[in-house]
Amino acid sequence: MKLLEEFIQEKGTVLPGNVLKVDAFLNHQIDPGLMQEMGKAFAERFKDLGITKIVTIESSGIAPAVFAGLALSVPVVFARKKKSVTLTDNLYTSTVYSYTKKKSNDISVSKQFLTDADTILVIDDFLANGQAALGLLEIAELAGAKVAGIGIVIEKSFQQGRELLNKTGIPVYSLARIASLENEEILFLEEE
Amino acid sequence: MKLLEEFIQEKGTVLPGNVLKVDAFLNHQIDPGLMQEMGKAFAERFKDLGITKIVTIESSGIAPAVFAGLALSVPVVFARKKKSVTLTDNLYTSTVYSYTKKKSNDISVSKQFLTDADTILVIDDFLANGQAALGLLEIAELAGAKVAGIGIVIEKSFQQGRELLNKTGIPVYSLARIASLENEEILFLEEE
Repeated sequence: MKLLEEFIQEKGTVLPGNVLKVDAFLNHQIDPGLMQEMGKAFAERFKDLGITKIVTIESSGIAPAVFAGLALSVPVVFARKKKSVTLTDNLYTSTVYSYTKKKSNDISVSKQFLTDADTILVIDDFLANGQAALGLLEIAELAGAKVAGIGIVIEKSFQQGRELLNKTGIPVYSLARIASLENEEILFLEEE
Repeated sequence: MKLLEEFIQEKGTVLPGNVLKVDAFLNHQIDPGLMQEMGKAFAERFKDLGITKIVTIESSGIAPAVFAGLALSVPVVFARKKKSVTLTDNLYTSTVYSYTKKKSNDISVSKQFLTDADTILVIDDFLANGQAALGLLEIAELAGAKVAGIGIVIEKSFQQGRELLNKTGIPVYSLARIASLENEEILFLEEE
């Protein structure tokens, strides 16, 4: 997606350890117009697959997911990273290791909002090692829900996540695919 | 806002301790069409105040805030509840006590995304005791930013938050105002 690649080049910064910081428009400050275009792109790609629900993870997945949900006219469920007082019982839970934060988090979705009648689209902000997406797939499996597609905002194609997701046979669509962050230079793969 | 009141009556549940659970459309599962209407309502109310940025708190403030941001053509910044590896330096921080979770959290906004040139609209999902909104006002003050308005999705008008915010002199606009949750019955105040 050209617009997203422009945002990444102009407003993204590369930190040591192949970390791409996009706090200026996605992970801390959010550009609503860009989010709307991203939501439309996800919807266009997955509109014929009978999606009944979008599942993402708080917090940075929410903005792209709600615009995709609006475009597809389906609800969005965001997995929570830890339990809250008003949300304790009847959860599907998966443990996700974050290489960035160097720790494991439980992510959970209420059984009330995900069932075997659902055909879901998983959306997340980053695909690097694939652990978050695999956690969402595990939650879908626990619920008996079908996963029709995986939509990623930014894929770091030089890490293992894409290959791990490809093995599941589920279609993966990444709006921007980064081939390399070597020498603080952002290089993209060709669009899918 | 009539549509929101209908969602609250039909899909909200009242738990002991005057807790209103709206996980079905706001705090866990999100209804994107409702979020869009809410965003438009906030924008309509605050459009003439020279807003340059919307500030909210992860996670449940994000969806209403991005639609308001889209309608006002301004960026959204969400305060983070704790520091992450990619976001450590140069933060404005405030400590917020949550009566629901019975603990204090730091909320932070990067100095990069909030300055004394900004005129901000604060948006949050709930106004009960007012601690989250006051934390955002403190962050704005640290940044030297002007706060032109406060937009709340659901106000529990029988708690102290509204009164505390009124004392600041900043206009507060709540899309739904709840007069009482006694006997598990949801009663609204008249619309503002």
